[in-house]
Amino acid sequence: MSATQERRAGAVQRVAIVGLGLIGSSIGLALRKGKLPNTEIVGYDKDHSALSKASKMGAVDKAYSRLDEVVDGAGMVILATPLLAMRELLQALGSRLQPGSVVTDTGSSKTTVLSWASELLPSGVSFVGGHPMAGRERSGPDAAEATLFEGASWFIVPGRGATSAAVSSVVRLAENVGATPCFIDAYEHDAYVAAVSHLPMVISTTLVTATGTSPGWKEMSKLAATGYRDISRLASGDPEMHKGILLTNKEPIIHWIDEFIARLHDMKRMMVEDEEALGKTLVKAWEARALWLTDRDGRKARKARKADDLGTGERFLTLMAGESLVRKGKELLGQDREEPFKERKDQPGGPPAWK
Amino acid sequence: MSATQERRAGAVQRVAIVGLGLIGSSIGLALRKGKLPNTEIVGYDKDHSALSKASKMGAVDKAYSRLDEVVDGAGMVILATPLLAMRELLQALGSRLQPGSVVTDTGSSKTTVLSWASELLPSGVSFVGGHPMAGRERSGPDAAEATLFEGASWFIVPGRGATSAAVSSVVRLAENVGATPCFIDAYEHDAYVAAVSHLPMVISTTLVTATGTSPGWKEMSKLAATGYRDISRLASGDPEMHKGILLTNKEPIIHWIDEFIARLHDMKRMMVEDEEALGKTLVKAWEARALWLTDRDGRKARKARKADDLGTGERFLTLMAGESLVRKGKELLGQDREEPFKERKDQPGGPPAWK
Repeated sequence: MSATQERRAGAVQRVAIVGLGLIGSSIGLALRKGKLPNTEIVGYDKDHSALSKASKMGAVDKAYSRLDEVVDGAGMVILATPLLAMRELLQALGSRLQPGSVVTDTGSSKTTVLSWASELLPSGVSFVGGHPMAGRERSGPDAAEATLFEGASWFIVPGRGATSAAVSSVVRLAENVGATPCFIDAYEHDAYVAAVSHLPMVISTTLVTATGTSPGWKEMSKLAATGYRDISRLASGDPEMHKGILLTNKEPIIHWIDEFIARLHDMKRMMVEDEEALGKTLVKAWEARALWLTDRDGRKARKARKADDLGTGERFLTLMAGESLVRKGKELLGQDREEPFKERKDQPGGPPAWK
Repeated sequence: MSATQERRAGAVQRVAIVGLGLIGSSIGLALRKGKLPNTEIVGYDKDHSALSKASKMGAVDKAYSRLDEVVDGAGMVILATPLLAMRELLQALGSRLQPGSVVTDTGSSKTTVLSWASELLPSGVSFVGGHPMAGRERSGPDAAEATLFEGASWFIVPGRGATSAAVSSVVRLAENVGATPCFIDAYEHDAYVAAVSHLPMVISTTLVTATGTSPGWKEMSKLAATGYRDISRLASGDPEMHKGILLTNKEPIIHWIDEFIARLHDMKRMMVEDEEALGKTLVKAWEARALWLTDRDGRKARKARKADDLGTGERFLTLMAGESLVRKGKELLGQDREEPFKERKDQPGGPPAWK
């Protein structure tokens, strides 16, 4: 009996995590902690040491060292690898996935991955892009935690032709690990994260490059204190992950680097010839950050309250990112004219029917 | 009997803190916690609310609302105001300070302040520049803490003609609040902090300016997470303090902004045409930061060990910033050919003779 046949017989749903680093292992830990009925969490990593660590720490029910084995019979495949590995993986997976299954990912840029999926996956397989807004300075399974996603937003970008069952299984995946699912358009997602996530990574890394490779670094590094520590923090993220981000979201990131350089030139000009404007700019930045922090705290509090009040269907639409995105979510889901949150019938071979 | 006469009679030494924000109030709290014998800590702030708060929280023994009163008879005056207020203060104080007294400051740039002091203070008064490497996101006396300087470096830049008694009283000031005194040359100090402290402040603030004033900010701000929070942290520092830094340390800061812009252009070029170099640059930045963090932890541990082993004289030369700065410290102190750490005789009207 093949793995597929076994699972169909016992109605066990297999969720395969491909890539057991910080994100993949944390997803595994969080799902297993939730003790989902009839669900088997399996994992694969091309790095044997990561695979064995993730397995030992209980991030998966079963670890596989072969890609074809881990996805055999899986209703959901979660790609949690660096972005640059995903094209090849999607290519390798294409012929091995069962019809009705769903592939999702956790990459920080979405347009490129969605275009790969649309090119490489067969039509019976749904791709639903995902982006959990959580991370840590350290990487690898050692840094993984079941609580990593609690309270975080989890962006969801359904691919063209994804079924509502597939979309809703990814929504439930996000919910099951404690995150808040939020719909967003791929282009909008990439433009926004380029500004608020990728640009900060670029300037943090570039600060270390500019200062750390200068001839005076040995002496000057001894004067670097908490300010330097905080602003350089993102330079300690996984270089491979950062490379993937920079290469799969080039245009929006370059747009924002140019924007940032223009503002640096403004700063220099004001320092030299316009003290009043300099003062106003600094006050405005101070105010903008204070306002953002206040809004953020408010959103967190509202989210916590709503999570207690709403059912799953409504929670599905509790989109952190505001009215326009709720509309967008409805439009995206309208694609296949099905009521997206109605009770699902059991669909052997389909995405897991988490409640 | 004037304040001066009163103090001489009782051999009480007056230390006047001018500016009772975060730094000034924290100095007051730390000194008063140390219960220095025969020392009176007095304070002034032009802002009545700060003055009254600092007084209520016990940062000073006595609060004054007039500058001439607070410095009357003071052996040491500590300027803990924004940098841009210091020129005017030095001018106002010039005629009111007693011969043999010492003026020090806590500003983040040193060349400009030293030139003001040299221009505006009478020859009998020593100026010894200071820069405690400690701060917090919040400002004002409410954020002050007696432990703010514990374990931090306190840079000391003696002005031309400062007596060794004056220099050594500022060294003891740093030690008495729990910091490690470190000698450094003014130009070197300003060049180094421009790179590791002022540049991070500029890019943190400019990140908020670039993103926060863009038309899409309302939507995109909802996607900003911990990465954005950390890299933008310094934009929440006191805008007035930041303006003072930018205007009193212009040339080194502009040099580093240009350097940083050049590296950003490199990043863009590599993203477009040299993936391999991009990967290497990201790995190098990762390594440079890891190395810095390791060195930093090592220094902290060594500092803690040394503090237990050494006497005050040696501790004076335990300069965090390495051999070259030890030499520099000796050179600077050589100016007035006195053994700098010999036991001091009581000098009424002179700097406090803290042990």
